[in-house]
Amino acid sequence: MKKAKKKINVAILIIGNEILSGRTQDLNVSFVSNWLNINCGISVTEVRIIPDIEKKIIFNVLDLSKKFKYVFTTGGIGPTHDDITSSSISKAFKVKYGFNAEAYTILEKYYGKKNFNNARKKMAMMPFGAKLILNPSSAAPGFLIKNVLCLPGVPLILKSMMPNLKKFLIKGPLTISKTISLTTVESRIAEYLTKLQKKYLNDVDIGSYPFFRLGKVGVSVVLRSTKKTTIKRCEMELLKIVKKNKIKIHST
Amino acid sequence: MKKAKKKINVAILIIGNEILSGRTQDLNVSFVSNWLNINCGISVTEVRIIPDIEKKIIFNVLDLSKKFKYVFTTGGIGPTHDDITSSSISKAFKVKYGFNAEAYTILEKYYGKKNFNNARKKMAMMPFGAKLILNPSSAAPGFLIKNVLCLPGVPLILKSMMPNLKKFLIKGPLTISKTISLTTVESRIAEYLTKLQKKYLNDVDIGSYPFFRLGKVGVSVVLRSTKKTTIKRCEMELLKIVKKNKIKIHST
Repeated sequence: MKKAKKKINVAILIIGNEILSGRTQDLNVSFVSNWLNINCGISVTEVRIIPDIEKKIIFNVLDLSKKFKYVFTTGGIGPTHDDITSSSISKAFKVKYGFNAEAYTILEKYYGKKNFNNARKKMAMMPFGAKLILNPSSAAPGFLIKNVLCLPGVPLILKSMMPNLKKFLIKGPLTISKTISLTTVESRIAEYLTKLQKKYLNDVDIGSYPFFRLGKVGVSVVLRSTKKTTIKRCEMELLKIVKKNKIKIHST
Repeated sequence: MKKAKKKINVAILIIGNEILSGRTQDLNVSFVSNWLNINCGISVTEVRIIPDIEKKIIFNVLDLSKKFKYVFTTGGIGPTHDDITSSSISKAFKVKYGFNAEAYTILEKYYGKKNFNNARKKMAMMPFGAKLILNPSSAAPGFLIKNVLCLPGVPLILKSMMPNLKKFLIKGPLTISKTISLTTVESRIAEYLTKLQKKYLNDVDIGSYPFFRLGKVGVSVVLRSTKKTTIKRCEMELLKIVKKNKIKIHST
């Protein structure tokens, strides 16, 4: 895996009416984002969720692939009429849409010649020049074309495929995150956090998130940085402020 | 509530590093989408998740507010340094950012004069001309400016505020949804669904979603339409196909 010194920013494009309508709860954003950071030092910095409409897929794939190092799409590569991601991406990049020989062989072997119907064959159709992302769960592969990596929408299948796309990516610096949960409210510590963020402006990203657990309110202060020693220094300063103001650390 | 005959399409803009990093699982998309459809006949047709960065908020608010009837933002209206939604939206629409007198009064009353510190006062700062969306959970109001409705990120608080924004919206036709779960795989029924979708092209939106429950696989076929009798007719046709092909209905 090649390594980059600078942060690598990527986008996720979720394609699926079921997520937009609220019928299905998306689980892929948090999984893919965590996986990419931990395994590849890559940060997801934009997500879009769009319907299964060809012109919307084309517009967003082109727009995001210009703006980001990689784009990860989820959904729309199955066998049914509403699975139009592969054909739409072919149109977006103006490349031929047709059978990928390797994918055809994999799927024919999986289903058996007799049961390899047209719907199943459709899953072997991809943009010309696509490289396969192998699928250990249900055979139908995802693929890479240009800087776009296409994955299925079903979380269990997507998860099983992530290790197989690692080889296509350039690795960035890992973002380290440290969470300090406090038994207080945001509006009591906001001014201290503002000062702390100003001091660590370019090195540590400080987030503040209220929570409610077992009837108690609190705030999780999250420090994120690619620099181990700097995040430690920032954490020490935060703990000093906490002590001075007699704020309790929330035991989890 | 005013009524429109045509479908009303809206977007959700989620502002928050914690969702992008995968630290926090978003729950607002599915809640807001379902709520808007059931209560207002309004469809969410695009979602974007972006970081707490001013220029990104400005770009996306302007872009989405031009493309959609309404934009619902979530996150970034709290008291801390990373809450920059209100100031960014003021800049986007080139209106003054300052104290909203009504919000100031509400918050001063809620915290008490003595405890009304600068961080708490910040939550009364909004774009000039904003109309309040009252908050029965924790006082700090959301607001409407132009066609953009700003809500907090914490799901519990957001949920409690939804009834208070209804008065600002024009109502559209309700989308009815009917789910038929089948004990089969997508690739066995795909060709039938393609034909059925072609027949009901402009009237019923047919979605197909594989599922895994208690070790069994199946497919949920979801019919969505604003026309009650048409969706019923389409359902009957689907059930005929299912019967003819000896596919079992999945009991839930």
